[in-house]
Amino acid sequence: MSRKITVAAAQVGAVHKNTSKQETVQRLIDLLHDAAKQKVQLVVYPEASLTTFFPRHFIESQEELDAYFEHGEDITQSPDVRPLFEEAKAQGIDICIGYAERTPDGTGYNTCVYYSASEDKIISKYRKVHLPGRVEPFEDPNATNQLEKRYFTPGDLGFKAFRVPNLVPDALKKSHSSNDDVKTDGTGDPIMGMLICNDRRWPEAWRVYTLQGAEILMFGYNTGSHMSHLWGAGNTMTPEEQEKEALFHSRLVQQANSYMNACFSISSARCGVDDGKYDLIGGSSIVSPEGHVLAEAKTKEDELVVTEIDLAICRKGKEKTFDYARHRRVEAYSLITEQTGVLEPPLLD
Amino acid sequence: MSRKITVAAAQVGAVHKNTSKQETVQRLIDLLHDAAKQKVQLVVYPEASLTTFFPRHFIESQEELDAYFEHGEDITQSPDVRPLFEEAKAQGIDICIGYAERTPDGTGYNTCVYYSASEDKIISKYRKVHLPGRVEPFEDPNATNQLEKRYFTPGDLGFKAFRVPNLVPDALKKSHSSNDDVKTDGTGDPIMGMLICNDRRWPEAWRVYTLQGAEILMFGYNTGSHMSHLWGAGNTMTPEEQEKEALFHSRLVQQANSYMNACFSISSARCGVDDGKYDLIGGSSIVSPEGHVLAEAKTKEDELVVTEIDLAICRKGKEKTFDYARHRRVEAYSLITEQTGVLEPPLLD
Repeated sequence: MSRKITVAAAQVGAVHKNTSKQETVQRLIDLLHDAAKQKVQLVVYPEASLTTFFPRHFIESQEELDAYFEHGEDITQSPDVRPLFEEAKAQGIDICIGYAERTPDGTGYNTCVYYSASEDKIISKYRKVHLPGRVEPFEDPNATNQLEKRYFTPGDLGFKAFRVPNLVPDALKKSHSSNDDVKTDGTGDPIMGMLICNDRRWPEAWRVYTLQGAEILMFGYNTGSHMSHLWGAGNTMTPEEQEKEALFHSRLVQQANSYMNACFSISSARCGVDDGKYDLIGGSSIVSPEGHVLAEAKTKEDELVVTEIDLAICRKGKEKTFDYARHRRVEAYSLITEQTGVLEPPLLD
Repeated sequence: MSRKITVAAAQVGAVHKNTSKQETVQRLIDLLHDAAKQKVQLVVYPEASLTTFFPRHFIESQEELDAYFEHGEDITQSPDVRPLFEEAKAQGIDICIGYAERTPDGTGYNTCVYYSASEDKIISKYRKVHLPGRVEPFEDPNATNQLEKRYFTPGDLGFKAFRVPNLVPDALKKSHSSNDDVKTDGTGDPIMGMLICNDRRWPEAWRVYTLQGAEILMFGYNTGSHMSHLWGAGNTMTPEEQEKEALFHSRLVQQANSYMNACFSISSARCGVDDGKYDLIGGSSIVSPEGHVLAEAKTKEDELVVTEIDLAICRKGKEKTFDYARHRRVEAYSLITEQTGVLEPPLLD
């Protein structure tokens, strides 16, 4: 059974501090038009797509900070962003998009949502679990801060996989003629999951999704090219080497986790040079369940990375090497959920 | 604080069905002599180092099968293998070696042990947790079987990290002057863990070890080059492409898991062409905590892959990007230990 979908990563180049949300949303819409021409069914936008990546800045003014957030429960009602969802509906293209979310009670999350064009609504929301960095700014004024732990609360929605309707025309539906469970073995509507940036480096996140049968994982990212101040003393890499290293790690974890979880992955970068000095890697890509890069960005600018994928390809890994039911041994994994940090064996005498 | 060790993967080429254990052990000793010349302190041998990889054969005779196993609790007392441990002691080189173990109660395990030359004893034993393949042979007589689940029981020792004495001369020891706990932060004797072959594809295994602070993971493997019959219908890869793919996956998971766990890894292949027809990949290598290949095999024959590693390099990952205490969110991981197989979301209406 073939289950083919045409998908895209919508990479977004530089967004400066003073770039307006309207201007950025128009660029996202332009990418959507490009996607429509190529008969794309699903577009994945970056993490925090609507603004510059503000967690690099130490912001003391609440008003200034709040301007980077979307307020309220439903981003499709946000006046600045509404035109994007309207266009997605008009074109019949599903979108996954990341943004900074401020809830009515004032909590900040690094969030993304999945909007189904056919349903004209958000069908899943994810809040970033693995916030990198720290709470306090660096003392070095030239260091690029990583203040996500200051501005956001770790996501409280877990890693909840979800089915997406109306992407695969002949997907098996629930049988209404009986109360029997229909066998779910890669014949139904696609199962997807969302991650955000740093989550991709944590194999736990991928595993929780694929324990729910996820066939496509999507994530956006803002990853600095030149973060040597985070890399400890003795770092002697040139800026070019640092960018190469950051891209190597990003690609490595996407390829390996796609393979070890027998799922496709779509990654979308906010990239380029923000405000003339903050350099972010590109590398948006679509990776197969065998860990191969099927398509990737050639620039560090707005760019649509498109390919057709066949979800049936996931079955090989899911039914053989990574048939969890046959091979996993949960009795040996207990530390993974019992223990957050490291407990070393005692020192020897 | 520099904590440097010179380590080696001792790759072993073809071992046929009729190759005697004495002959194979002599080759392992030859590799040890080579290691001694290069001042190696730790040599990692492959999975099931002593015989051909017999789980590819459907063996009905218990006597024939038993000949592939080492019997009893302590392999250092096995007459065929004892010369290897004697030589390791004489040269002052620690070794990690894999073999098929038959316990006194008749249970079969795919096992490896860590022998400390300075202690002149096995200081840790590991039994393979993730047995690949199946119980029944393939019907196709030309298919290479993968009968580990038939001949072995999943390991019952978990993933237990251990400290290794006398490798790092100035490693911090337990303070005898007080009962205070000594802070364990990469200043003590090295912390290691052992995996076997297929385990390397399971991020759970790596994570359990590094939740105990592991700085070096070691594993041997027997990985078929041409296993297209395992890869499902529609496979059209040439034998050369299949070998490239198998090597790609092996390398990919080693590099990514080393990076995501901020540990060194040493992998050692049983490789070459057994009995003129069973082709195994090489690719023995030593990988850094940043996921880079530091040294790798150039052949598919007996070959020592040597490099010096500095365990201090692990601290960058362990204290920043992969500082578990700061970043892990175990409340989101519960499915990993609650659920062995896949539970998909219900089909949509």
